[in-house]
Formats: sequence, structure tokens, C-alpha cells
Amino acid sequence: MQQNWMSRFSDNIRDYDGYAIGKLFKLLNDPATISLAGGLPSPDTFLKDDLQRISQRRLQEDADTIMQYTDISGEMDLIEAVIQFLKEDNINISKENIVITSSGQQGLDLTGRLFLNPADAVILDRPTFAGAIVAFQMQRPIFAGVEIEADGSDIEGFDKKIAELIRQNIPVKYIYVVPDFQNPTGISMSLEKREALLDLSYEYDIPIVEDSPYRSLRYHGDNLPAIFELDQNRKGDHVIGVYTFSKLFCPGMRVGFNIGPKAVIGKMANIKQGNTLNSPKYNQDMCAAFLQEMDWKTHLENCRSYYREKLAIFLNTMQDYFPEEMGVSWTKPQGGLFLWATVPEGIDTLELFYEAIKFKVAFVPGEVFYGENPAKNHMRINFSYPSKDQLTEAIKRLADCIKKYQI
Amino acid sequence: MQQNWMSRFSDNIRDYDGYAIGKLFKLLNDPATISLAGGLPSPDTFLKDDLQRISQRRLQEDADTIMQYTDISGEMDLIEAVIQFLKEDNINISKENIVITSSGQQGLDLTGRLFLNPADAVILDRPTFAGAIVAFQMQRPIFAGVEIEADGSDIEGFDKKIAELIRQNIPVKYIYVVPDFQNPTGISMSLEKREALLDLSYEYDIPIVEDSPYRSLRYHGDNLPAIFELDQNRKGDHVIGVYTFSKLFCPGMRVGFNIGPKAVIGKMANIKQGNTLNSPKYNQDMCAAFLQEMDWKTHLENCRSYYREKLAIFLNTMQDYFPEEMGVSWTKPQGGLFLWATVPEGIDTLELFYEAIKFKVAFVPGEVFYGENPAKNHMRINFSYPSKDQLTEAIKRLADCIKKYQI
Repeated sequence: MQQNWMSRFSDNIRDYDGYAIGKLFKLLNDPATISLAGGLPSPDTFLKDDLQRISQRRLQEDADTIMQYTDISGEMDLIEAVIQFLKEDNINISKENIVITSSGQQGLDLTGRLFLNPADAVILDRPTFAGAIVAFQMQRPIFAGVEIEADGSDIEGFDKKIAELIRQNIPVKYIYVVPDFQNPTGISMSLEKREALLDLSYEYDIPIVEDSPYRSLRYHGDNLPAIFELDQNRKGDHVIGVYTFSKLFCPGMRVGFNIGPKAVIGKMANIKQGNTLNSPKYNQDMCAAFLQEMDWKTHLENCRSYYREKLAIFLNTMQDYFPEEMGVSWTKPQGGLFLWATVPEGIDTLELFYEAIKFKVAFVPGEVFYGENPAKNHMRINFSYPSKDQLTEAIKRLADCIKKYQI
Repeated sequence: MQQNWMSRFSDNIRDYDGYAIGKLFKLLNDPATISLAGGLPSPDTFLKDDLQRISQRRLQEDADTIMQYTDISGEMDLIEAVIQFLKEDNINISKENIVITSSGQQGLDLTGRLFLNPADAVILDRPTFAGAIVAFQMQRPIFAGVEIEADGSDIEGFDKKIAELIRQNIPVKYIYVVPDFQNPTGISMSLEKREALLDLSYEYDIPIVEDSPYRSLRYHGDNLPAIFELDQNRKGDHVIGVYTFSKLFCPGMRVGFNIGPKAVIGKMANIKQGNTLNSPKYNQDMCAAFLQEMDWKTHLENCRSYYREKLAIFLNTMQDYFPEEMGVSWTKPQGGLFLWATVPEGIDTLELFYEAIKFKVAFVPGEVFYGENPAKNHMRINFSYPSKDQLTEAIKRLADCIKKYQI
């Protein structure tokens, strides 16, 4: 049977390779290499003492329940804590509007499975979050992408794309955006565009999937309302929110939540039943404790200070060393964990990646952030994980690599 | 948009309701009701002290890694511990043959997603595990079921069914079985049938999915080899094994593993990337500690003694109280957590379920254990969770309910 497993696999999965970043990361095993490739929050920010203390107490109080099967939609303690947390962001929901997930990746997969038949269309930015692409890709949709602009999604471009798809009788199932400090570009969507995107959503009656992993990580400027809030202000129900505790508390718990209309959330909970049953209670309890017992506001303020400083060092060093004269440019994000650099069109950043490894530095080639027709001359650069000294050194190495790179 | 969400959902999910058992469980909120409906291991068997002790140590030693993203295929410590654990069951695999899952439900969902297009066929027992049905159902396959026999799957029936499907040009993607103490019947497959099932698998070149949640819970008789072992003895590679720590250690960690040919496991890891990324490291670490530091052999021996006694009480009480004279019969399993009772054909056990609730006792109506054409006159009865006194009382109530039930 060895020879013919491929022929047995489903049409959706046969050519599916999962996360392209993962394969590149396996090349980064030299400890001398400074990686700007990951999307890891820094362990410097982790509330380790709180986790240890609360973990010990909860396991003493409640091991019987923690070790048992629990509710598939989520622990009521956590759901209530999330409802309160969202209220501070002017989002008002009830428990039937929320399903706890095993983090944002499951939140995105639930979304893809719920809506997409093969060859249905998803509207999204070019580039956009690779994890969303790999989640949705398992349904083999059409990725109808439009180049992102400095102030976020190109809403007029979305409009044209939707009209074109409708003319072709292709169902457009949702519009996927990461409005705050988008992964990979770091770009945020302006308030005007958030409202315009809602207009578009209402006009065509197409829901918006708002992915908000980095929303709490703004280092400069004023918070903008979530599209979910704007939709509630207009008495709409066109937005599905995808959230994770990965950048609030820590990625290792694997807990997040989706919010949206009851009809959508109920179906997502059904899919979660067939997919994983409940998310583990211990992990949910730690996230509930994060919101209820840990000083999460101070924690997030500390995270912002910490990353703000790293971002400043990073942007200053880029300014000093990156070869603008060669036509290299980059975004200057106000938050999040990433920025996006563009090199001259002739340079293929996947080839540059292999070259950069020789310079003991790594980034993610931009091509993995496109649903289709990948652009080749971009790179995603992470500034959250390496130490400050490493960040400076990494920029110098990368600048050096680019300058010496022969097309 | 409220009015028309249904029309937007994917063809696979529009009519998908998830776990029918879940909806019935919501009716069981009267604490006076003794539930024989669940599939819960008893917390009496949980290694709470070990969990507390090891949890505290691991969080002190390694919180940075526990709180971070980790490998999607699983923690190497756990993978190595599982490889050793399986060796004791005469199964010899390497790390490329195993993917850690967020428990058996994810293991089954990965299987369905990997193989099934809509209208592909799965061969399975009638009845079979409802969790497998709800996992596979999200791909909308044909459930080609054959009535199970006292010594396990009807292999000749499978043979006829496969031949018939092939004649109809319907792809048969795999044969799904729970050979040890099947949920819901408690029936085990004889050694002869395990070998015959392999013959069938080779003859038609169709893989077997062997789901083994209860394999460690044998209370009487000798262990039979896993079909995976028999396949390895014959140098085949036709079996995919689905395992969970839920009945070994505890359900609450939500950790399991799938084993099989490298080509299959690699693709399952790809799907897991798009589905959930890594299973949480804390939970994997606790399962690794279960295999490496806790005395798991003594623990499983204790579990067997504990459940053996409950099963004996249960079967004795049924013998004394259940109305055999009415044509009621039941299986006498040698292990696992369930037995299967059959009532006269005119009785619909879903209706009986609502009546039983009035008698303060609950079971699972057998109809949820059929992929299609559900039989109506069976019930699944769990003997693992209620206390011994409750078990006796529950049988008396259920016997009373059946005797008084008017068709």
C-alpha cells in the first residue's frame, strides 16, 4: 500500500501541505542564527509566577473536574470573564455569542469549515495571515485577494473583486481581515475604512471575519474601534470575531474564542464537537484566572512598553543600516509583532532566505502570505522575540546579506 | 442577516448537528437522576496527587516552554514514551509513524478529513462509536454499516458490502472498527476475525482504522493482539491506530495519538497544522509523565480491579431485576465501560429515554450509534461512573421503567 496512499486521500487534502513556514523553521537549528522568522511572543513577558501559583491552587481545589470531560462550548467562568473583557472594548455579547476554541487556528478552521465549499470565494488582503490561508485552504476556496494599502484593506478593490465574482456566479462567503497590526505587514485599518468595509458588507450582504490577535498590542496612537463594535453600533450582525489568548496571556495554553451571531456560534460549537470535543479545562481555567485574578491590564501595559522599546530599536537600526538606496522599503507599524520589508522586484526572498541563513539571520519569505499568485519580493520580519542586542545584530546581518545578494 | 445564515453554510455542515448525545445530556440536570448515559471514567481512579506534584515541578522547571508555541507533531518526550508504551503491546513504530493529537476525537477527525470526499464509503459496524460517526459525518460519506456479531464485526458481511459498493463504483476509503470492548456494545473482536479482517483489507487493498480507547481496560480473559500488531507481523502497512489518554490517564488533558504509515501520519500532521497547531505542551508533558514517572502499570491494574467490581455488581443486578421475560437482552462485556441492551422491537428507546428521566435514571438511546438507518430498540448503558450503590439503584429504576412502559 506504500506506493499509493496519495491516491486515497480526499480531494481537499491530497495536495495540502499545511504551514509552509513550518518547513522553513526546520532549517533554523543553528543556535548562532538569529531568527526574525517566528511569531513568538517573548517569554520575558510571561506571567510565570502567577501561572505556577494559580495552577497549584486550581489542581488542589478541582482536580476531579480538570481531569474530566467538560462542556464543548467552553467553561462558563471563562465565557463570563471574556464577556467582561470584551465590554471594556465596547463589545457587548451574551454567552450564546461565544464559543471557546483551542486558540485562533481552530477559530479560523471552524470558520472555513462552516462556510466554504470548494471553489467558493474568500475576500482577503494581499498579503494576509498565513495561518488563515492554511486553515481555509483545506476547503479549497478561491482566495480573492486585493493588495493591502498603507491604511489597510483596499475597500474599493474589494468592491470590484466582489462584483466581478458575483458576475461569474461564484459565491463570496466572507471577507477576512486582520484590522489591527496585520500579520504580516503590521498595517492597521483606518476608522474610515472600517466603516467603509461595513458598508460593503451590508451592501452585498457578505459577513466579515475580523481576526484580532494583536489588538491589545498598540504601542503608538489611539485605539480604533473593532469592526465588531461598529457593526453593533449600527445594529448589524455581520461580523464574526476570532480571538486568541496567545498574545494576551501566552500561546502555550492553546485557548481562544470566536464571537458572532448565535446561529453561527452554535454551528461552530457543533463542528468543534466533531473536531476535538472540549478544549482542556485546565488551560481554560488558567485563561479565566488571567482575566479574573492576574493583573491583566498592568500585564498588557508592560507588554506594550516592552515591545514598544524593541520596535523603536529595530526601526532605528533599520534606518541606519537597511539599504534604502537599493530600493528597499519597510512598514512602520504602530503595534503588533511584525513588519514587512519590500526588496527590488528581481529579488526572490525565498532564495534570499537560504542566503540569509549563511549570514546567520532568518526571516519569513513573503510568498507564504498569499492565497494565490504570491509576490516574491517581500519578507516578514518579527521584532518581538530576539533580545535587543540580537535585534540590532540581526538587522546588520540582514542588511549585509541584501547588499551582497546577487540577483 | 439573521434570517439566512443557514443558506451561507457549506454543504458539508449545513445539516450537521454534531453530537446527538450532547443534547440529551442537557436534560440530565436533576441531581436525583442517576445517569448511565455518560462515558466518563470515574474520578475515583484519577492520579490526582501525581498530577499536582508533577505539574508543580514542570511549571517551575520549564514554564517558558510550556507557555510558548511548540512542535505541531508533538513533544519528543511524549512521542518516545508512547513508542515504549506501544512496544509493551508488541507494536513497533518510529517517530515518523506517530502524530500527537488533542485526543481521540481529533484523531478521528484527522482520519475523516484525510480520506473522505462526499459520498465516499466507510465500512463500519452497526452500531458503532458515535464520536466516529460525528467526526466522519462532516465529510458526508456513505456509512456502509453491517450488524455487529457477538464475536465482533461481521467480516463476511463487510466483504459483501465492499463488493457491492465496488460494483456501484463507490470508493471505499477505510474500514473503521473498535476491536476491544467496542463503544457502545462492549463486544470484542475475536482473534480469528482480526486476522480475517486483515485478509479482507489486503484482498481489497482498503486500510483499517483501529480505534483503541478501551484496550487497557480488560477485566476478564486474555488480551488479544491489536490488529496493528497482526498487520506488522505480516509486514503489511494497512492499519491506522487511533489512541487516547482519556481512559489511560484522564480525559481532561485532551491528548491522544494516531499511529500509521509515514505517508498517512505526515498528512495528518499537515491537517493538524491548519486545524489547531500544537496540542498544548503542559497537557502533553503530563501524559509523558504518566508514562515515564507515574506507576502506570499499577494504575491500570487498579482501574481494572475497580471497574471489574462495578461490572460484576451491574451484571448481577441486571440478572436479578431486568425483565428477560419481556424479551430484554444485553451484552456481557469483558472490558470497557459500556454494555448494550436490546428491548423488544416495538419500543423506541428515545421515547423510553424521556420516560426513564421520570424514573430518575438515564441511558443513551441506541439510535445515535448508527451512521444511517438507526435501529430504535437498543440502549447504551455505562457502568463506570456512578457509585456501586447508584449502579444497583439505577438498574432497579430502569427495570421498573421498562416493565411499566406502554408501547
